[in-house]
Amino acid sequence: MVVAVDFFFLDLNRTGNTSNPFGSRVTSVNNNQLSGLNTLGISLVHIDYAPYRLNPPHTHPRATEVLVVLEVTLNVGFVTSNPADPNQNNKRFTKYLNPRDIFVFPEGLTHFQFNVGDKNVVTFAGLSIQNPGVLTIDNVVFGSDPSINQAVLTTAFQVEKRVIDYLQAQL
Amino acid sequence: MVVAVDFFFLDLNRTGNTSNPFGSRVTSVNNNQLSGLNTLGISLVHIDYAPYRLNPPHTHPRATEVLVVLEVTLNVGFVTSNPADPNQNNKRFTKYLNPRDIFVFPEGLTHFQFNVGDKNVVTFAGLSIQNPGVLTIDNVVFGSDPSINQAVLTTAFQVEKRVIDYLQAQL
Amino acid sequence: MVVAVDFFFLDLNRTGNTSNPFGSRVTSVNNNQLSGLNTLGISLVHIDYAPYRLNPPHTHPRATEVLVVLEVTLNVGFVTSNPADPNQNNKRFTKYLNPRDIFVFPEGLTHFQFNVGDKNVVTFAGLSIQNPGVLTIDNVVFGSDPSINQAVLTTAFQVEKRVIDYLQAQL
Amino acid sequence: MVVAVDFFFLDLNRTGNTSNPFGSRVTSVNNNQLSGLNTLGISLVHIDYAPYRLNPPHTHPRATEVLVVLEVTLNVGFVTSNPADPNQNNKRFTKYLNPRDIFVFPEGLTHFQFNVGDKNVVTFAGLSIQNPGVLTIDNVVFGSDPSINQAVLTTAFQVEKRVIDYLQAQL
Amino acid sequence: MVVAVDFFFLDLNRTGNTSNPFGSRVTSVNNNQLSGLNTLGISLVHIDYAPYRLNPPHTHPRATEVLVVLEVTLNVGFVTSNPADPNQNNKRFTKYLNPRDIFVFPEGLTHFQFNVGDKNVVTFAGLSIQNPGVLTIDNVVFGSDPSINQAVLTTAFQVEKRVIDYLQAQL
Amino acid sequence: MVVAVDFFFLDLNRTGNTSNPFGSRVTSVNNNQLSGLNTLGISLVHIDYAPYRLNPPHTHPRATEVLVVLEVTLNVGFVTSNPADPNQNNKRFTKYLNPRDIFVFPEGLTHFQFNVGDKNVVTFAGLSIQNPGVLTIDNVVFGSDPSINQAVLTTAFQVEKRVIDYLQAQL
Repeated sequence: MVVAVDFFFLDLNRTGNTSNPFGSRVTSVNNNQLSGLNTLGISLVHIDYAPYRLNPPHTHPRATEVLVVLEVTLNVGFVTSNPADPNQNNKRFTKYLNPRDIFVFPEGLTHFQFNVGDKNVVTFAGLSIQNPGVLTIDNVVFGSDPSINQAVLTTAFQVEKRVIDYLQAQL
Repeated sequence: MVVAVDFFFLDLNRTGNTSNPFGSRVTSVNNNQLSGLNTLGISLVHIDYAPYRLNPPHTHPRATEVLVVLEVTLNVGFVTSNPADPNQNNKRFTKYLNPRDIFVFPEGLTHFQFNVGDKNVVTFAGLSIQNPGVLTIDNVVFGSDPSINQAVLTTAFQVEKRVIDYLQAQL
Repeated sequence: MVVAVDFFFLDLNRTGNTSNPFGSRVTSVNNNQLSGLNTLGISLVHIDYAPYRLNPPHTHPRATEVLVVLEVTLNVGFVTSNPADPNQNNKRFTKYLNPRDIFVFPEGLTHFQFNVGDKNVVTFAGLSIQNPGVLTIDNVVFGSDPSINQAVLTTAFQVEKRVIDYLQAQL
Repeated sequence: MVVAVDFFFLDLNRTGNTSNPFGSRVTSVNNNQLSGLNTLGISLVHIDYAPYRLNPPHTHPRATEVLVVLEVTLNVGFVTSNPADPNQNNKRFTKYLNPRDIFVFPEGLTHFQFNVGDKNVVTFAGLSIQNPGVLTIDNVVFGSDPSINQAVLTTAFQVEKRVIDYLQAQL
Repeated sequence: MVVAVDFFFLDLNRTGNTSNPFGSRVTSVNNNQLSGLNTLGISLVHIDYAPYRLNPPHTHPRATEVLVVLEVTLNVGFVTSNPADPNQNNKRFTKYLNPRDIFVFPEGLTHFQFNVGDKNVVTFAGLSIQNPGVLTIDNVVFGSDPSINQAVLTTAFQVEKRVIDYLQAQL
Repeated sequence: MVVAVDFFFLDLNRTGNTSNPFGSRVTSVNNNQLSGLNTLGISLVHIDYAPYRLNPPHTHPRATEVLVVLEVTLNVGFVTSNPADPNQNNKRFTKYLNPRDIFVFPEGLTHFQFNVGDKNVVTFAGLSIQNPGVLTIDNVVFGSDPSINQAVLTTAFQVEKRVIDYLQAQL
């Protein structure tokens, strides 16, 4: 049976714990937290950022994200997908946002948010699906279990084995 | 050509004009305001409410709405669709929301938000489609142009013609 | 196991009971009556109307309806959704239909059918989804359980409390 | 601009011309006839059948069909798709329908309607998409332009060339 | 729990058994064989053809097929759906393919592949859905269980009863 | 007008040029090369790999990929998306493939193919959409134009500025 609490969520009315290497915390509101959202094609996140810390480059394969800044200033950006010609560079879009400014991260593109100031920042974001998925680039590439074959990574990033060793050791 | 401004919108950083009969103002951010949202399956609204005024009962035929309160307290609710047995009543869900509380209005259901206090209230809401559509019940039923046939309305609402006349005259 | 009866339905070959306040009866044929329709994206209704009675203003949030009149004459109509400017009126479309005439009620819009003559009328209608949903406006707004807050309704319809009391008492 | 005639169609209120080899006539009502149906996910057909004639075996690749008999009696049927084991037969479902009986032809399956009596029969059918497509089996296999390679057809139907010649000559 | 074998399939690395009336064998790789494909919107087939034999005219109601020839030469073709005017013929497209040539069979259309040489042929094909369905025309029309009514088939194919008897006896 | 060449493509019958930093070449067959594929929900790629070279870690935001090896041996793998707990590692799946072996890269996940031998390798792959998109991780993160802010990358990868400088200089 459906009851009122299926449609109501009040746990976001407090600050998320940002004591982690990236200094940010994403609190999700999807059908797991709010069963009334099940099959309805939308979810929400509340993000806290410690001063000078970030939500690192990541991709949502199944969702566009629309972000609103509630407090203070935030630097945000995304990089477009590959052009047909592999000798051309990928294009980066970036912007400084003030409270109530809105920014769109198009579906599937790699994006990030960076708190460039000395105060905590808070944002809300809507995502265009119930379960958007997330790939954090650094974890996927250098922090998988087991590791991606060293020869794959040295050829892909065109660096020596010791650079890959170092990058893998950080994550 | 796609440019940064397609993904960025800052016009919500001010209060909407609520000088109208309902005392609320919905400011939409969809692909008309933010071309980067085109075909991406999500849109946003920013709503201002004057003290003791409301966003009247309405329906979005194509979208679920997830609302976040930014400031002060708001009463929200929705009514479920028809049960199979026409002698049973439709069920109403309602809740008082504080800042950062979240509420879901499921796709297609009639819902409202009511500012029960003496301060302006501000909310943001995500909608699960680019163009959600909106039917404001009072305008559709009693304020259409031309009017719905009086006999239709007297039979539907089971009241005399003078009551329908009075309701139509208000809108 | 699938059997022939899953694809066949003969219960519509008789008149529906119209002894109710609106004087109409909608008999649905969807996957509950006809399991062969499950997931196939269409359903059907058979509607009977007593003389001078109606199928009151209602909305199907998830379906377009295509209606065919089998017998006698019927007045039908719908009202378009809200224009951007709240001071503009919603537009009403209406038509008198004879046997085998066809009319379309676009997805999500509020519509009605009214028997303007002294004979029973019969229609069939196809709906563009298995489970179209239905919101009968009068029940949703004035007949919910519990009632919508009186202050919401007096502000929305811009009438005094006694008019809302009277409307709620009829349903 | 949208006008009332976009939603209204009255040309079905007369009998279709059945003077053709199969003795039936399908009159379509889709977005070409009724522009209000555009993108709305449903279309309608009105079918006339001369005595003892038929709508021959055919397939709608993109639509389920729900058929209602308006007048007299009709034999209808469909054949299920291939079982995994090519030595098993395909299953045929069939039924005699009286006025107001309903039958479902599931999406993509080959089906037919046969007038087994000495009177004209009339049906209406809803289809679950704007443009359902139709493949009439006999025309596709034996009546294409140019013809399918004889060796393909003799191997597929496991008959001699003269039988294929004869079948192709009829269409 | 998901494991590596869900995403890996090696059973195609051998020749399928073509000892059957048509002389071809379709080996499917869909979510039944490869559970990692579940809900992912694609499947694969590996087809073997004996010399001078074929994959007979058939239709996938829910999938477009993209075929690649691995070895030797193959004749392929499809027939378009019905034109509006029943007196016009359906259009046939055909082509001879060499190794690594690619051909598209559009969703829902009747198509075939014919090995015109004296060597075994091997193809791979991608299908645009997990479960494409298949209707082999000769089995559906002349080999169903029970048979389609003789009067339906004599009228549809415009031949005498003894021709239908003969065709049904072959399958 | 549709013609046979819209459905036929023979340009894959030769080896792609692998003289580039990664030593692989992806040749796409989608609606740009083969107009008959337009809107049909599938595309194909033919990939050549030089000895000991690779198709570097990348993501298709809108497609699942099903890959078949035509010649020699290939190492393939993918990494799953983020677990809820950021302290847990992402899971890597990998496999050595022989001719006619099949592997699935689920929609949106980061994957790669690595030629571990001294011969050229050829694969074909079906993708579950017309335009799958592609993000090559190294180009997106370290090769965008303009570069992603150094502070974002040093915090994300938790390395000093000189490591980021070095990685950016390679691409």
